[in-house]
Amino acid sequence: MTFSELLTETIYQKKNPVMVGLDPRFDWIPQTIRRNTDPKNIEQVAEVFREFCCEVIDIVAPLVPVIKIQAAFFEQYGVPGMSVLRRLIDYIRNKKNLVIVFDGKRNDIGSTAEAYAAGILGKGSAWEADALTVSPYLGDDSLEPFVKTAVERNAGIFVLVKTSNRGGAMLQDLTVDGKTIYRRVAEYVQQLSLSTCSESKRYGNIGAVVGATWSAQLAELRGVMPNTWFLVPGFGSQGGSAKDVAAAFDENGLGAVINNSRGLIFAYRREPFQTTFGETKWQQAVETATIQMIEQLRAETPAGKLK
Amino acid sequence: MTFSELLTETIYQKKNPVMVGLDPRFDWIPQTIRRNTDPKNIEQVAEVFREFCCEVIDIVAPLVPVIKIQAAFFEQYGVPGMSVLRRLIDYIRNKKNLVIVFDGKRNDIGSTAEAYAAGILGKGSAWEADALTVSPYLGDDSLEPFVKTAVERNAGIFVLVKTSNRGGAMLQDLTVDGKTIYRRVAEYVQQLSLSTCSESKRYGNIGAVVGATWSAQLAELRGVMPNTWFLVPGFGSQGGSAKDVAAAFDENGLGAVINNSRGLIFAYRREPFQTTFGETKWQQAVETATIQMIEQLRAETPAGKLK
Repeated sequence: MTFSELLTETIYQKKNPVMVGLDPRFDWIPQTIRRNTDPKNIEQVAEVFREFCCEVIDIVAPLVPVIKIQAAFFEQYGVPGMSVLRRLIDYIRNKKNLVIVFDGKRNDIGSTAEAYAAGILGKGSAWEADALTVSPYLGDDSLEPFVKTAVERNAGIFVLVKTSNRGGAMLQDLTVDGKTIYRRVAEYVQQLSLSTCSESKRYGNIGAVVGATWSAQLAELRGVMPNTWFLVPGFGSQGGSAKDVAAAFDENGLGAVINNSRGLIFAYRREPFQTTFGETKWQQAVETATIQMIEQLRAETPAGKLK
Repeated sequence: MTFSELLTETIYQKKNPVMVGLDPRFDWIPQTIRRNTDPKNIEQVAEVFREFCCEVIDIVAPLVPVIKIQAAFFEQYGVPGMSVLRRLIDYIRNKKNLVIVFDGKRNDIGSTAEAYAAGILGKGSAWEADALTVSPYLGDDSLEPFVKTAVERNAGIFVLVKTSNRGGAMLQDLTVDGKTIYRRVAEYVQQLSLSTCSESKRYGNIGAVVGATWSAQLAELRGVMPNTWFLVPGFGSQGGSAKDVAAAFDENGLGAVINNSRGLIFAYRREPFQTTFGETKWQQAVETATIQMIEQLRAETPAGKLK
């Protein structure tokens, strides 16, 4: 099964397009898990991350189709952190019915890009992720090894196109011959994705990262990339709403996965969950916030058709 | 001591600007080290990498000021690979007088960029590198956390400006209002670097990656970034010569470090070293190739003034 087929099947099974982002931040982890951990002891912090993330995975696994692991928060704690990241991938795989995205925004020149692709993408690789996020600044010959390996291993990549942060505009929104940089990248990603599928298959295995914070651009880019899955960050904590991301979907409610990290895994820290559940019932906050996000997307976007 | 001061001092001690890149590729490692290793056993391969890289470090430590570790080749072999990367950083630190660059081309949006910066940069961090390579596609607010942490920890960053590969032109060479994208990034990096030093100090702690394969652009960018260290990849195997990189230096022979990876660590695989030394004397090939590169740069660039 190709990555796109896996993603489609898993979304249909769960009947929603929610991606839960694992972005563990030590200070925000509930006290019952942090206990007396020394925040400077990377082995201890990594173990806290493992325990917290496993609980989160247990809660969301029956609900959502995709989990995204943010490599930065694990790499921050060195080898113990990366070791926990690897164990979490195994843990998620054993739950079945979850697609795993390694959010590393990796890239390098061709021969070195091959090493990242070979190490991270697909079953049998060292990290065994289903997909990886990739940065495009190094250009076409840096993306090709990822595309090649993704296709060979039934994996996928998501190329940064229009990121959710304000500063992304610095390069991405510059206009060359009447066309923005992000649109040029989008057109190239669309070509790549189409090369991995047929028009009739609709979606290929090369995706695009397009922020929820830019709803007009989401609509524009859906048109530019009809054969490309969107990974949409920026929902929730960063300000994107269900209405904002509606344009990311096709008429069948496919074509996009909507990420929420802090807003779900640390839901207990925000209202109304802080008052209703608080830190002691943080697990219920995760579950309730995830169900609410699923329902919002079903109510206000074409993802309602997935039911 | 700031990163720029450390780099300057180390370059003056070694009297040359050569950066040796550790890019281990399993198939190219001499048989005496590979022995009967199973290439699919990531623990065994990581151990071969450790042994090979430690020997290379022993050979080049007395000769050159900077070592660059390419994270991709270690991440390819999972947690065992990253564990060896970490042990190599310790090993290099114990040799003294070597500056360590973690070549990860990392980046993410602001709060996540903080995690990469906190984990990788400076003494006391999980990885303890002196500097990190960073990709600019996510824009100014993604670079700021790296700058802040670098200054706080006496570390540095090198932002991708004009990369050595042909495909880099796809985005980097596009022209907006008469100015290329790489030049815009360069002007921003120059501002950042200047904000970390005074004009009189000459170089700040924010560097730029500018490929040896583009000699005209090296000269242009030296003018645009007078207070910015250059990390110059692409020398040797990728086609850049000593003459090509001459423009990267200031009149005192400072301002640039010239990287060579495969051309030095796998020198035994190319002529004239293949004939003279062959695989059995691969260590002598590394040493001779490194000395030759140092001498070429001394003869044909302003780095000759470092003597």
